[in-house]
Amino acid sequence: MNAYQDLESRFRRRALLGEAMAILHWDYATTMPSGAAEGRAEQLTALTLESQAILTEPDVADLLDNAEASVDGADAWQAANLGRMRRAWQHANAVPPDLVAALTRAGSACEMVWREARQANDFQRLCPHLEKVVALTRESAMARADALDCSPYDALLDQYEPGGSTARIDTLFADLEGFLPGFLEKVLEAQASRPEPVIPDGPFPVDAQRDLGERLMRALGFDFDQGRLDVSHHPFTGGVVDDVRITTRYSEEDFTQSLMGTLHETGHALYEMGLPRDWRYQPVGEAGGMALHESQSLLVEMQVCRGRHFLDYAAPLMREVFGGSGPAWEIDNLARLYAKVARGLIRVDADEVTYPLHVMLRYRLERAILSGDLAVKDLPGAWNDAMEDLVGIRPPDDRDGCMQDIHWMDGAYGYFPTYTLGALAAAQLFAAATAEAPDILPGISRGDFGPLLAWLRANVHGHGRRFDTDALLTEATGKPLDTQAFKAHLQARYFD
Amino acid sequence: MNAYQDLESRFRRRALLGEAMAILHWDYATTMPSGAAEGRAEQLTALTLESQAILTEPDVADLLDNAEASVDGADAWQAANLGRMRRAWQHANAVPPDLVAALTRAGSACEMVWREARQANDFQRLCPHLEKVVALTRESAMARADALDCSPYDALLDQYEPGGSTARIDTLFADLEGFLPGFLEKVLEAQASRPEPVIPDGPFPVDAQRDLGERLMRALGFDFDQGRLDVSHHPFTGGVVDDVRITTRYSEEDFTQSLMGTLHETGHALYEMGLPRDWRYQPVGEAGGMALHESQSLLVEMQVCRGRHFLDYAAPLMREVFGGSGPAWEIDNLARLYAKVARGLIRVDADEVTYPLHVMLRYRLERAILSGDLAVKDLPGAWNDAMEDLVGIRPPDDRDGCMQDIHWMDGAYGYFPTYTLGALAAAQLFAAATAEAPDILPGISRGDFGPLLAWLRANVHGHGRRFDTDALLTEATGKPLDTQAFKAHLQARYFD
Repeated sequence: MNAYQDLESRFRRRALLGEAMAILHWDYATTMPSGAAEGRAEQLTALTLESQAILTEPDVADLLDNAEASVDGADAWQAANLGRMRRAWQHANAVPPDLVAALTRAGSACEMVWREARQANDFQRLCPHLEKVVALTRESAMARADALDCSPYDALLDQYEPGGSTARIDTLFADLEGFLPGFLEKVLEAQASRPEPVIPDGPFPVDAQRDLGERLMRALGFDFDQGRLDVSHHPFTGGVVDDVRITTRYSEEDFTQSLMGTLHETGHALYEMGLPRDWRYQPVGEAGGMALHESQSLLVEMQVCRGRHFLDYAAPLMREVFGGSGPAWEIDNLARLYAKVARGLIRVDADEVTYPLHVMLRYRLERAILSGDLAVKDLPGAWNDAMEDLVGIRPPDDRDGCMQDIHWMDGAYGYFPTYTLGALAAAQLFAAATAEAPDILPGISRGDFGPLLAWLRANVHGHGRRFDTDALLTEATGKPLDTQAFKAHLQARYFD
Repeated sequence: MNAYQDLESRFRRRALLGEAMAILHWDYATTMPSGAAEGRAEQLTALTLESQAILTEPDVADLLDNAEASVDGADAWQAANLGRMRRAWQHANAVPPDLVAALTRAGSACEMVWREARQANDFQRLCPHLEKVVALTRESAMARADALDCSPYDALLDQYEPGGSTARIDTLFADLEGFLPGFLEKVLEAQASRPEPVIPDGPFPVDAQRDLGERLMRALGFDFDQGRLDVSHHPFTGGVVDDVRITTRYSEEDFTQSLMGTLHETGHALYEMGLPRDWRYQPVGEAGGMALHESQSLLVEMQVCRGRHFLDYAAPLMREVFGGSGPAWEIDNLARLYAKVARGLIRVDADEVTYPLHVMLRYRLERAILSGDLAVKDLPGAWNDAMEDLVGIRPPDDRDGCMQDIHWMDGAYGYFPTYTLGALAAAQLFAAATAEAPDILPGISRGDFGPLLAWLRANVHGHGRRFDTDALLTEATGKPLDTQAFKAHLQARYFD
């Protein structure tokens, strides 16, 4: 066994621990009884530490050096895999296991307090727990920054967006910040001049909603032999490549939002299901980072399912499943409903025009928190000011203000910008796909998603983590990520 | 950190991996999509190997020696824990990781083939897979036997029944074999002279069955904040101490069998829920082996729930939940139904009189298979002969003959005798409990299981794995395991 093969076998062990963690995470969010939360946190911490220990074995450094000296550069997959191994090794060796464990435990504890503190709109109660998570995250960020030779924030970002940087994000976000507020004004004006969309009248039985969701998932290419649809408080995609588990939540009064949630997660799921199976247990076989992951969910949701072609196909199905008839069920109304724009308080409910503003707010504040420019105790005021500045409304309380998201509670700093990078990438990829494969759009109108899925498999899913976001975009669309396609998409959807 | 503390921290890591495996096993049996079976087997194999690797670190031997030389014998828990550590270390170091992995994979593969081969009644198709599992199990048994200085079969048995031996089992089983066939004849005769019990008329909606099951579980002491009830093909108890997951299966035509299945698993669950939490992550904090585990399920099912006192309480609830009335719902009929005895083909459907005969058959055959006296290809004939000899009927096919159980497919040899040891222990423990705490039986009649649970917590659950079966029985009942209480119980139930 040469050095590279030895590394492969170690990374395989690590990947299998990661798969176990993925199932335990899913179970935590969907199934686990409430009294098991602390025990589960210990299990996940233990698996995290075992996984880290595989990469902190003292001989791994030599193995990497030897493999890098000898690996055949002509095998692009192997070379990319080795690059990913090196990066994973840097991260694993940067942060001492005690700090990893302390951060995992502090995150779990903070999350548990947060659930109740948010309900009670009690930021004071949350504050000391959040301060602890921030302090430990800062420590971890500095350690990673030393190892990766970058800024602490970029070191955190690198966990979610390999190769990403604030420099790159700042440029893209500055462009959007110059465009979106004015565009939002115009959309709201135009929207006011059109008929107000109507939500179809319920109630909509949960069983029927699930049937419709599963039918559309199947049509899009979701394989139920290797996946599931369940219910959780917040929709997410979890599990592993041959066992992809998406969740949604149902409201009997309104099926439209839940359905779009299901379709969003289906986009994530198709990415996971399409990853290169030959590389399943290697770092290069993983998805390409959270920006590309979000590009796949937003491509399905925003580019495809909220658009006219999809509604040509789906609206009759909706009428059939729910026995709907009348103006609320017409394609025009559903299209207006699914493209409704509003200044709102809650990120997860935001439309695609205002969503990036919610992200910019978080990006701005989390950098300030980590650098120490903003104290955790001053977060509520800073949040409300930034919301007023960026989105144009002021939260009446912290529940729907700075306490609305789980990310910071759990120690996920550097994650938020990937949502908007994903939105940009989705638009750019979909524009390239439809230009290159003219059968995609007519296929969507008929419920034939084969041409779309084939393009995504070939240009995104099948690449695994071979490329960083910009490199993949360049391969697939001819240029690195920019804002042009996103702006063109918004223009077309809201004004054409 | 002294040697003992160092060992505790390593065993804690191992226990947490074990907890992760327990949840993954539960998920496999209840939730996982079919296409993920191979991937799941790889995850479980990886966790098994990581867990073994903790105990095969070269310094563990010295740690054990040092801890044994220095641990305070006056702390009985610590001393017992150290003894369990030594035994676990012997097992882990006896079998090379490659063999562990090969056996795990062969077991998973054989189980997958078995599911279809059993359906198709096709032993030929199963045979080569089963031969592979047997060959690897034999190899593993011999390696363990060397390490433990006992026979290969006893070495396998030791995994399920710590300190158990064929010598001990042979004595108990010879006694039962002398008693049961004649007793069975007499019961069948007596039964023929009594009215045939009637199964209440359905259909029984699954939701109502689950509600009744959960109500009785709660009454018995099951804590739904730390546990769940779900559905699987074969009922089992899984999960971990603060997340105990039992399963059942429902038939709309007959609620009575499903309900008793739920109550059986509740007995297992109460044991897990009552284990000493201070020792959660240590070997001494585990349940005391499968015989004691089965004693707890059978105590609840056979000693309590199929008896008169329980039906005094439960029959009115059944009538209430299902709106039942008439002769089928009377306590006399339900008691006869729940104590019905018959020569049957299927172990899991067997009554308490014939069940030990099913176990003896398997005990006899699995020893012959492992010793090489019986070739796997000759199993069907040997099975049918032994069934005729012991139970008095001959299976018409292999589906309901030698292919009915999962154990041998999965490599679980040495497990079967623990079912009958458990039945003996259940009778002996319940006799001691009711003699010592006269409020137990009247409590059961009222649905107050507090006195029973208190006795079990104090005399069984709370001991964890401090004692072997005989030692625990001696502590709790004044003498080691024997057949006397079991025979007295049968006499009382079927003839008094």
